[in-house]
Amino acid sequence: MTHRLLTPEELEAALLAIGAERYHNLHPFHRALHDGKLNKGQVQAWALNRYYYQASIPAKDATLLARLPTAELRREWRRRLVDHDGTEPGTGGVARWLRLTDGLGLDRAYVESLDGLLPGTRFAVEAYVHFVRDRSILEAIASSLTELFSPTIISERVSGMLRNYDFVTEETLAYFTPRLTQAPQDSAFALGYVKEHARTVEQQQAVLNALTFKCGVLWSMLDELDYAYVAPGHIPPGAFKPQDAS
Amino acid sequence: MTHRLLTPEELEAALLAIGAERYHNLHPFHRALHDGKLNKGQVQAWALNRYYYQASIPAKDATLLARLPTAELRREWRRRLVDHDGTEPGTGGVARWLRLTDGLGLDRAYVESLDGLLPGTRFAVEAYVHFVRDRSILEAIASSLTELFSPTIISERVSGMLRNYDFVTEETLAYFTPRLTQAPQDSAFALGYVKEHARTVEQQQAVLNALTFKCGVLWSMLDELDYAYVAPGHIPPGAFKPQDAS
Repeated sequence: MTHRLLTPEELEAALLAIGAERYHNLHPFHRALHDGKLNKGQVQAWALNRYYYQASIPAKDATLLARLPTAELRREWRRRLVDHDGTEPGTGGVARWLRLTDGLGLDRAYVESLDGLLPGTRFAVEAYVHFVRDRSILEAIASSLTELFSPTIISERVSGMLRNYDFVTEETLAYFTPRLTQAPQDSAFALGYVKEHARTVEQQQAVLNALTFKCGVLWSMLDELDYAYVAPGHIPPGAFKPQDAS
Repeated sequence: MTHRLLTPEELEAALLAIGAERYHNLHPFHRALHDGKLNKGQVQAWALNRYYYQASIPAKDATLLARLPTAELRREWRRRLVDHDGTEPGTGGVARWLRLTDGLGLDRAYVESLDGLLPGTRFAVEAYVHFVRDRSILEAIASSLTELFSPTIISERVSGMLRNYDFVTEETLAYFTPRLTQAPQDSAFALGYVKEHARTVEQQQAVLNALTFKCGVLWSMLDELDYAYVAPGHIPPGAFKPQDAS
């Protein structure tokens, strides 16, 4: 809780402190993933569940786009839709994520059907979409600030996965390369926005809470994966059952 | 998937089959809870998280109540609000749940603040409230049908907890006794409603999906508790940390 008005720089420091405590690069499942401790079926489960997050991001961004009041803000946010949905079939972040699930040997129709999704993944992802739909524009923009921390996790993930898994190639990880430049551009805008627009103690607290909430979304997705797929493993009824434990 | 129109009796059988596969009495955390395998801190974590579910049920029911088209339906659904919210302060299911958290030694203000909630609990409970708000009345009513299975789990829970935990008394479990008569009354109405109103293959499939969804809500809440609080334990940043491992 913040009890006095922070300077913009203090607000930025408080946001970074939330990431240092709560961002999902600290989660045991992320560490196992990039340290090469998972088998192919477990990496498939991660990619399959994370697909729903990726596929929901442009819907989340479109929800916010529809509420933004100025052309300037809408142009900025529209860029995110271009990044994720692409400019023609087969381009954009969601299509590149499907190249990852293809490369891991998952059936594309099965991935897109969401039939094998963990219920907890669904609830966490939809909580994020609903948050952005229902909260203030300031909170919605602040909830995107996990991108401040994503270049680090992407670097760890790509280098660790290429080093440790013979079933992972640079081609299958094509999703991540553009994100290394897109995410900093996105988060620089969002950080500037919240530093300028969070002008009361209540607004600053709402911004900090929004980032905490979003860290919980990402963290909870890895909780579910770790619980379901890492030994002893408790796959819920109906969720994806890996065949490949190599 | 159902591919032909079921008779009302076949629909009922299909609903019961979903419960037999997916209801959370089959979850390892429930079994540990009623078998006396948990310590006091773990039982506290369960009661603290489940409180948010209990406290959200009347909000969920009020959301549906506001959409029901007839006095007959609204009277039926209003009864649920009376059961949970009571007729005066200190009565009703939510107040009785707080007697459970009191009896387990949890600070009431802390429980009600939701500060120690697992993010996954929040997302699962809110997914249920949103489902009832956003889906058809038929699906909303069908999602309540987990009450078909609750008398069994309540009996197991009460007898198992009284037998196995010296920190649990009949007074602290006062929540459950009225539920043994309320839940069958509720579920008999809801089952009759869906058997009468699910008249197309699509409606029947929607009813089955709604119950599957709701089983996923309850199951996912126990996934999170088991992952966070049962050895080795992975409590997310900011969630309740038990002090009492007796």
